[in-house]
Amino acid sequence: MQKHEIDLNSDMGESFGPWQIGDGADQHIMPLISSANIATGFHAGDPATMASSVGLAKASGVAVGAHPGYRDLVGFGRRTIQASVQELVQDTVYQIGALQAFLQLEGMSMQHVKPHGALYMAMASDEALSLAFLQAVQRLSPQLAVYCMAGSATHLAANQLGVRAIREFFADRDYAASGSIVFTRKMGRLSPEAVADKVLLACRDGLVDTVDGQRIPIEFDSVCIHSDTPGALELTRATRSRLQEAGITIRAPHRHHAA
Amino acid sequence: MQKHEIDLNSDMGESFGPWQIGDGADQHIMPLISSANIATGFHAGDPATMASSVGLAKASGVAVGAHPGYRDLVGFGRRTIQASVQELVQDTVYQIGALQAFLQLEGMSMQHVKPHGALYMAMASDEALSLAFLQAVQRLSPQLAVYCMAGSATHLAANQLGVRAIREFFADRDYAASGSIVFTRKMGRLSPEAVADKVLLACRDGLVDTVDGQRIPIEFDSVCIHSDTPGALELTRATRSRLQEAGITIRAPHRHHAA
Amino acid sequence: MQKHEIDLNSDMGESFGPWQIGDGADQHIMPLISSANIATGFHAGDPATMASSVGLAKASGVAVGAHPGYRDLVGFGRRTIQASVQELVQDTVYQIGALQAFLQLEGMSMQHVKPHGALYMAMASDEALSLAFLQAVQRLSPQLAVYCMAGSATHLAANQLGVRAIREFFADRDYAASGSIVFTRKMGRLSPEAVADKVLLACRDGLVDTVDGQRIPIEFDSVCIHSDTPGALELTRATRSRLQEAGITIRAPHRHHAA
Amino acid sequence: MQKHEIDLNSDMGESFGPWQIGDGADQHIMPLISSANIATGFHAGDPATMASSVGLAKASGVAVGAHPGYRDLVGFGRRTIQASVQELVQDTVYQIGALQAFLQLEGMSMQHVKPHGALYMAMASDEALSLAFLQAVQRLSPQLAVYCMAGSATHLAANQLGVRAIREFFADRDYAASGSIVFTRKMGRLSPEAVADKVLLACRDGLVDTVDGQRIPIEFDSVCIHSDTPGALELTRATRSRLQEAGITIRAPHRHHAA
Repeated sequence: MQKHEIDLNSDMGESFGPWQIGDGADQHIMPLISSANIATGFHAGDPATMASSVGLAKASGVAVGAHPGYRDLVGFGRRTIQASVQELVQDTVYQIGALQAFLQLEGMSMQHVKPHGALYMAMASDEALSLAFLQAVQRLSPQLAVYCMAGSATHLAANQLGVRAIREFFADRDYAASGSIVFTRKMGRLSPEAVADKVLLACRDGLVDTVDGQRIPIEFDSVCIHSDTPGALELTRATRSRLQEAGITIRAPHRHHAA
Repeated sequence: MQKHEIDLNSDMGESFGPWQIGDGADQHIMPLISSANIATGFHAGDPATMASSVGLAKASGVAVGAHPGYRDLVGFGRRTIQASVQELVQDTVYQIGALQAFLQLEGMSMQHVKPHGALYMAMASDEALSLAFLQAVQRLSPQLAVYCMAGSATHLAANQLGVRAIREFFADRDYAASGSIVFTRKMGRLSPEAVADKVLLACRDGLVDTVDGQRIPIEFDSVCIHSDTPGALELTRATRSRLQEAGITIRAPHRHHAA
Repeated sequence: MQKHEIDLNSDMGESFGPWQIGDGADQHIMPLISSANIATGFHAGDPATMASSVGLAKASGVAVGAHPGYRDLVGFGRRTIQASVQELVQDTVYQIGALQAFLQLEGMSMQHVKPHGALYMAMASDEALSLAFLQAVQRLSPQLAVYCMAGSATHLAANQLGVRAIREFFADRDYAASGSIVFTRKMGRLSPEAVADKVLLACRDGLVDTVDGQRIPIEFDSVCIHSDTPGALELTRATRSRLQEAGITIRAPHRHHAA
Repeated sequence: MQKHEIDLNSDMGESFGPWQIGDGADQHIMPLISSANIATGFHAGDPATMASSVGLAKASGVAVGAHPGYRDLVGFGRRTIQASVQELVQDTVYQIGALQAFLQLEGMSMQHVKPHGALYMAMASDEALSLAFLQAVQRLSPQLAVYCMAGSATHLAANQLGVRAIREFFADRDYAASGSIVFTRKMGRLSPEAVADKVLLACRDGLVDTVDGQRIPIEFDSVCIHSDTPGALELTRATRSRLQEAGITIRAPHRHHAA
């Protein structure tokens, strides 16, 4: 059950024009993770930011995925838009293609796709949307993986289509006894030590402590720390150290196919 | 001097959301041309329109190019924005990549890039911008051609870099004795017969009549009819017929490499 | 029960940048109506269009209302966005203020507010949203009226707050036996004569024929013909003629307070 | 020559959606200044931010002005857009109106207008643009003042039209011997003490030290500290203290008409 290696993913490039997310910590977080979900311009990110984020990822040997969202800058892609499945798929195709061009310029290839915010949640519960989205992803590039929650509609659709699913464990979110995440509007500052402990427990023993005092089993392929969580840099640093001390290697999924 | 075949290009997919350009004539113009410059979302075009434009091009066997513009929907990319060379190149990379994804879904490849409106003009007179732009284009895909005006900075930069330059003849614009185009804000409705005659003269004899009554030689590789010129459909129909009657085949550049 | 005068309203200024709605018929429709709902930039409309629409309304003596929508150009405000009540109210305040400035420049005052598309429908079924929206409207200007559907949450909220409610009859929509509107995605071309007959029946007898063959009573204060309904100009012309022939005056609500 | 009171102005509300400028220091800077230039949505600012900025200004008794910019979020309004005078004036009218609505909700009135970034600079050297802009401002509200550089086209146009001009002294910019500002792309961190000294010298003696070692006379009505200058909060605090210690009251222009 103990993992010998694990993926650590974070959303990167969520600036826009003059504005930065997380105090411009991207450059410090990038060397600590193994997979970067780079924002693609609809909820955040602009061409200049995408270019520099891809450059940062390359310099740190980090695998890159597209992080497409709703066309909603002012709402940061956190507000559901009642668009048709076709529109949403076309919006994500556009965004994935845009990021591919920046990867091409650097001679890199795309590892995965991870929808952002409300789109991630919409897909998690909408089978038709997940299927249509993953069919497009598959036609764009058969080796692309998708990041998702274990058991979500996206996960099931990926299994059905033969798209590689990378199930996420959210280091900076609370879990309910059902194994689902407890969403909170405003997050207080988390303790780096507590987060690192939580991730280690999950990676070593496959367990997580829930908000109602239980300890339940959890399955996942990647640990996510959101870069806009207050103190994200410290959380990521502490988590990385704890994992390394425990002999767990941080490695992107596309690097350990044969594991 | 007489051409046996010529490319006929038009801007396609310049709708946005609920709004159409040119009374929705795209579907009627597409079968008449050989190369389509598809708008890529910054000055016009949206993912749904890009998808349907690519579908129309495929159905008609029309070669596709990216038509990137300034990030200026309200100004339709017709207003120069004093952005840095780097920003502009990154903006076009983003747009080219986005269109590539829609082509990939259809198993098509991109033939060319043609900047739109004020960006086309800015490049025509800015060598540094043209060079940086074409270097990025070349790195994205070495076989991409660029549409440009003969003798422009874009043309010269393409020659310098070894990018294939497709020089345009503008069927719906007036020429000055210098060989340059005379820009007019508001265009009256052009006569399809006159436009067809003008194109035939250019293709058959390599000549164009200027606004000041001269007849001068002109060199070009493609005839452009703007789809937002009033009556574009009729202009394109008449031009195509005239050329075909004269035994001139309408064919995309990438189809007659060996010509 | 017969009305001696009735308001005829239409959405105006729903162009954006280079793109027009309804073949640029605004200038022809404006002289035929009594109240114009002018788009305010979020779902359609831009400052130049707002300025010219206000100018057209002034020239035709037409009363002006703000037509705010979701911040969703590409979706034309027809897609619900799950934003908070506070955000939506702030978005409408912004848009109403923007239009007020153009009215101020012309020495005109605003008659009413009519939310657009999906926002109109969201308010119609959301009491909290309608109340918050109308409280803001009332604080901006106590004499502003609101256009709404009879019996909707917006109507009830207006009554509760003492905001004047103008109930709409939709000339270009079908009615169900319940008195509610039957929405259809794609509308065929309507017969101007049939629409004119329908409006006359409603104004003269207070009755409407439903899709299931019944004739039911209907109450309203204004007749709406959407300017993006195909053939809107002809529908409006026929309706206006029919009403005038029947001796019914077309007049804006703020002109017949004492009626 | 010594001033007994002076206006201290800063750009406020230049956040957008999830993104903040200057580490969210607005709430701390607002109580230290006398006039706030609130961003109006085109280069920065959104309805929610405008509402909260107006609320902050009200709570601190700070006079409010509109801070309209080019429609260029990604470029933060720092890139000139070659738009027509009419378009630019209509864009500013739209933005001014939008802010007026939020002031109306709070029972406040607008003190002034200050164009942002590249638009401020474009107006400073374009008499036709300044005249058209100020004519619109005057028609919107005759008591509105305009912030500008002494001797600029905007200043001259204001004098010509009888619009009150508030000439600015830039605490965080260097001056040349000509009295004009020396623009630098990237600014290093300024010393709060040095900035405070500079402002005091200007307010007490009407003098400024230039980059080439001269001390020249300077005339102004307001001191500007840009809120996106690194360390803006400390600069503003130090400046305010220094002025108060010297017996100079910080007061908005509209408060000392009779001074």
